[in-house]
Amino acid sequence: MNEFDFIKTIKPSAYQQSSLIKGIGDDAAVFRQTHADIVTAVDTFVEGVHFSKETMSAHEIGYRALAVNVSDMAAMGAVPAMCLVSVVFSSEWKKEERIEIMNGIKTMGKKYQVDLIGGDTVSGESLVISITIIGYVDQDCARYRSTAEVDDVVFVTGTLGDSAAGLSILLGEQSGVGDVAYYIRRHTRPQPRVNFVQELNHLNRVTLNDVSDGIANEAAEIAEASQVDIYLDNTKVPVHDTFHQFDQDQQYSWKYFGGEDFEILGTVPSEEWEAIKRAATAVGVRVTKIGQVRQGEGLVYIQKDSKIEVLPKDGYEHKEIGD
Amino acid sequence: MNEFDFIKTIKPSAYQQSSLIKGIGDDAAVFRQTHADIVTAVDTFVEGVHFSKETMSAHEIGYRALAVNVSDMAAMGAVPAMCLVSVVFSSEWKKEERIEIMNGIKTMGKKYQVDLIGGDTVSGESLVISITIIGYVDQDCARYRSTAEVDDVVFVTGTLGDSAAGLSILLGEQSGVGDVAYYIRRHTRPQPRVNFVQELNHLNRVTLNDVSDGIANEAAEIAEASQVDIYLDNTKVPVHDTFHQFDQDQQYSWKYFGGEDFEILGTVPSEEWEAIKRAATAVGVRVTKIGQVRQGEGLVYIQKDSKIEVLPKDGYEHKEIGD
Repeated sequence: MNEFDFIKTIKPSAYQQSSLIKGIGDDAAVFRQTHADIVTAVDTFVEGVHFSKETMSAHEIGYRALAVNVSDMAAMGAVPAMCLVSVVFSSEWKKEERIEIMNGIKTMGKKYQVDLIGGDTVSGESLVISITIIGYVDQDCARYRSTAEVDDVVFVTGTLGDSAAGLSILLGEQSGVGDVAYYIRRHTRPQPRVNFVQELNHLNRVTLNDVSDGIANEAAEIAEASQVDIYLDNTKVPVHDTFHQFDQDQQYSWKYFGGEDFEILGTVPSEEWEAIKRAATAVGVRVTKIGQVRQGEGLVYIQKDSKIEVLPKDGYEHKEIGD
Repeated sequence: MNEFDFIKTIKPSAYQQSSLIKGIGDDAAVFRQTHADIVTAVDTFVEGVHFSKETMSAHEIGYRALAVNVSDMAAMGAVPAMCLVSVVFSSEWKKEERIEIMNGIKTMGKKYQVDLIGGDTVSGESLVISITIIGYVDQDCARYRSTAEVDDVVFVTGTLGDSAAGLSILLGEQSGVGDVAYYIRRHTRPQPRVNFVQELNHLNRVTLNDVSDGIANEAAEIAEASQVDIYLDNTKVPVHDTFHQFDQDQQYSWKYFGGEDFEILGTVPSEEWEAIKRAATAVGVRVTKIGQVRQGEGLVYIQKDSKIEVLPKDGYEHKEIGD
């Protein structure tokens, strides 16, 4: 099967988005969007760097690649609509596996109404999946990182560190732990919080980021872009019921720096906190108040065991600033 | 310099497109387009497959990657507006070379008013550049491959085979040939025919394809999508003044199957042929009538030395059908 034939196999039999005029089959896809703003991002995944055959099936690799992109749309307050997929296949990936990667993308796309409207498959030395996602948001309602203000409540959906725990289990690093299926599913089948974010549409101001690189990094992005400091309370950061079974240092590392939980970290004026809780209840998602926005110049602090420390983005530059 | 810093170095200091609301710097870019249709495509280039350090500078690699995408917009009758770039860098590419690749993309972007609105750079085993291009076209005016009709004139811009000749020269396969700089430039610095295509906006029907894979393939795409046959006259297919200096078989192979000339192949009703010539004159581009659309089922024929043969897409399935 050559590359041209392969593109035909991934062409959907029908599209879900009414804004789409022309999908796969010409030099480019065509769509129209006259009443909403258009949101777009690209994310790339390299075998051996971002994923591996050892820990995920071909189907899961495809599913997860699109999920990461869908989560970017949630972070913007947008609804995902379409995607373009570029895949570099190495000869190690058999035809059946290639199709399974595309099927994983399709399964995720069906779940979140994301149409595959363009694609490009080429041969290379290692598997690279690059996805461009396109979504819609009401005019002037995209949610940016730069809008956090002093005294805002900081909140996060779901629980943190689960994906990193799942990966550790898949890598065979854990023995005798429970809830294995849960943690693995959280790693291989992330559920971007698109529905939750849509419930916030009526709010005048909410600052959002998705947890792709760990909340330490995501909070720092908000703090820097908004020129404020963010204070987090370690006792409030939500974890799964059985998360305490893991090594203490791993727990700490995973929940702040593990990333890939694809939950939503946000800030809102404190008077809107009740609205955030109602939105979460409406879509069956857990939400927790974990901190506060204060005056500052873009740092993230963590209150832990009666100490307040700067929380470094990547977990490597611990610097104590007071006790 | 880590990946995050690198993204900052490629962030433009200003954007050219007024439709852009938010460029690089958040989870996604945001734009608005309420009066035109939006056209988008992705193209991926792998080191060793699509390009090599042996034949092109880092700057040219970047320039050309975006040019290929811009040409897709021309093929749709669209004006390119924005792009998202994903690059997988291998350790063989030094910082200066990485920046030069991005500078090549920027140079091309400036020339065609294409804003770089999103990016993603990751590490991997070999260089992979994947570009998603976004362009605009008047509502319901995108040009498709499927609209050719019987008795249409078949035309092509510029000259064919030049890029393949340039590559052959760069690979050191030619000796004692002239016009070397011209052929090399045609390979390394393609000029997508965006301006020419814009001059056709007033035409009710014109079928377009860009010559990325050789006109044999591009003509077949039109013939198949439109369910017609296309007849080409070998004596009419335009070549550069000094093209006859090359080996006869190479000439034939390059002009039909060489591809990467990024000229425009099209069909129009014969009464519009004068309008096509005027459009070409207006933008200083050569245009040549090279054949005719006839009733059929999707094949391309070539009249050559008083014989008519099927022209295979890739040059490998020669089959004589009459003389």
